[in-house]
Amino acid sequence: MLHAVVMAGGSGKRFWPQSRQRRPKQVLAVGGTRPLIAETMARLDGLVPVEHTHIVTHQSQVGPLLAALGVGPAPSVIEEPYGRDTAACIGLAAVHVLRADPDGVMLVMPADQVIRPVERFQQVMRAAADIAAQGDALVTFGIKPTYPATGYGYVHRGSKVCDADGVPVYEVSRFREKPAKETAEDYLASGDYYWNSGIFCWRAATILDCLRRFTPDLYAALERIAGAIATIAEATVLRETYEPLEKISIDYAVMEKAETIRVVEADFEWSDVGSWASVARLRQADADAEGNVIAADAALVDVADSLVIGEDGHLIGVVGLDDVVVVHTPDATLVCAKDRAEDVKALVAALEKSGLKDYL
Amino acid sequence: MLHAVVMAGGSGKRFWPQSRQRRPKQVLAVGGTRPLIAETMARLDGLVPVEHTHIVTHQSQVGPLLAALGVGPAPSVIEEPYGRDTAACIGLAAVHVLRADPDGVMLVMPADQVIRPVERFQQVMRAAADIAAQGDALVTFGIKPTYPATGYGYVHRGSKVCDADGVPVYEVSRFREKPAKETAEDYLASGDYYWNSGIFCWRAATILDCLRRFTPDLYAALERIAGAIATIAEATVLRETYEPLEKISIDYAVMEKAETIRVVEADFEWSDVGSWASVARLRQADADAEGNVIAADAALVDVADSLVIGEDGHLIGVVGLDDVVVVHTPDATLVCAKDRAEDVKALVAALEKSGLKDYL
Repeated sequence: MLHAVVMAGGSGKRFWPQSRQRRPKQVLAVGGTRPLIAETMARLDGLVPVEHTHIVTHQSQVGPLLAALGVGPAPSVIEEPYGRDTAACIGLAAVHVLRADPDGVMLVMPADQVIRPVERFQQVMRAAADIAAQGDALVTFGIKPTYPATGYGYVHRGSKVCDADGVPVYEVSRFREKPAKETAEDYLASGDYYWNSGIFCWRAATILDCLRRFTPDLYAALERIAGAIATIAEATVLRETYEPLEKISIDYAVMEKAETIRVVEADFEWSDVGSWASVARLRQADADAEGNVIAADAALVDVADSLVIGEDGHLIGVVGLDDVVVVHTPDATLVCAKDRAEDVKALVAALEKSGLKDYL
Repeated sequence: MLHAVVMAGGSGKRFWPQSRQRRPKQVLAVGGTRPLIAETMARLDGLVPVEHTHIVTHQSQVGPLLAALGVGPAPSVIEEPYGRDTAACIGLAAVHVLRADPDGVMLVMPADQVIRPVERFQQVMRAAADIAAQGDALVTFGIKPTYPATGYGYVHRGSKVCDADGVPVYEVSRFREKPAKETAEDYLASGDYYWNSGIFCWRAATILDCLRRFTPDLYAALERIAGAIATIAEATVLRETYEPLEKISIDYAVMEKAETIRVVEADFEWSDVGSWASVARLRQADADAEGNVIAADAALVDVADSLVIGEDGHLIGVVGLDDVVVVHTPDATLVCAKDRAEDVKALVAALEKSGLKDYL
């Protein structure tokens, strides 16, 4: 059976001031009109039954996430007591899926991506799930790049393995970190590189076996947790085993070491909505003649290629600037060079260090 | 007797969003901690008795201005029903001064300049008042330029006339409009040019005689107004005569045509606080190591030479920008390139044209 695992543990510091400690990025409608988590759930509708859908998140974020989902059948929520990156998150989810379904196939995805159209997404996911169900392949999804992005990791594809329902499937030659501009241009020109989507598909048993071999400490913790599920000790064991875990991504922990990796070509529109700059890109269809995306009461004089986000009853006036991001909330305002949108994280770090913790 | 005429009719559009229709620039503490009008009144303390001090302003601004002055002896207020630039404003004040004092000498100044130190200001004003009282000279004040400003008009001095209490007094060779950068550099290098301060001194009878000769329509209106002062018809006559008046500055109406003009060298620190850029300059002593002047809860990452103004309880975060102005108020925020600060006026004009009049 196909299960969905939605990783919703991020805090989204780069989306300050809209995202805060108690209002993570996933509950924001940064890509459009619905919260990202609601978009993600809607994308699974018809592909995975809601009772087979698991949202993994930090305990403090359960309330905001369920509120963002609104009324309706609720997915199961797997609470992490500490954020320990994706290897632990996926391992914990695998333990729960395996317990419910020894043959369970997991479709793992972040909660904060924007993907269109839903129909093509589901077709590609089904093709991948078929491959994963047949054996021990770790299936990744490679997005056909549309521009030389420097903010994404890349997957260099190897030989073609097959077509699954018309979806091309390749071996993986190598994973590549976020490249410099020139390298990204080479990747784009070659046609052999995909953006690394952060979406995966595999049997729960397969990924747990990989964790056993590559991250024995994590695996030992997961075994303890598995033994405590649905007992009175569950919460305590989870806290005790999770706290000392190393923060390590599934990419480093498993993908770069495992043998049978496949990349499925994903030809849908995709964005990981990593920063305000990607929001500007996502909403480009709504831009005015000067390339400005405006979701605010605003007055602009000689402004181009900028993103202005506010709320009703507050005017944002901008004069003589290009490529800026202005985001206004009732208690905090961000003004940022668009090409420095990644560094909003540094701003939040500065707030953490300073006496301005009220704004976190 | 020496009278002071404080011209406080400006709306200060370039100081949006702190200045608004009902909160003109003069009531803002843009130069420091006290409202500009209060600074101006304090500057006259000991030079002109408060009962000989006249504030000329638009009817709608009387309340805010008096509120900004706080408790204490109030100056007389001359209300204009319409803003008709400085020739009309000064003519109206001259009518009132002459009525109270046929030999009255008027020291005319804008309400929104920052001048330091007060002692030197008063010494220079006294010297000028002596010259004005002796005859029919129109006395202007020339500020010794400290940098090649392109935002000020200049006065080219002619032959030296005398030293008045050690203050050099010159004939005026010519008034010059705001120059281009290169021209401003030549002016600065020559040593013969002053910034045109917008401060004047003359007998009320002298300036009215000039207006009679150079602007007969305005003079006719002033005669009608003079005849109606303290009668039941005063307000009606003022409205009727003022409304059709041409908007013309005292510089164009009189200074460029009159014969006996003197420029007194004013060696005090002076700024007309024309825009947010001049506020940044004025407050430079408070700047941090990166040249940022901050009067707000703020967190800055890679920001230099910028001005950030806000209010308690609202954080302003700026990332990766130089030479910007950010001003936050409860219902409106300005983000502006510092070298485009003059164009905040254009932003306000855009608001006037649009459906966003609530923010004016």
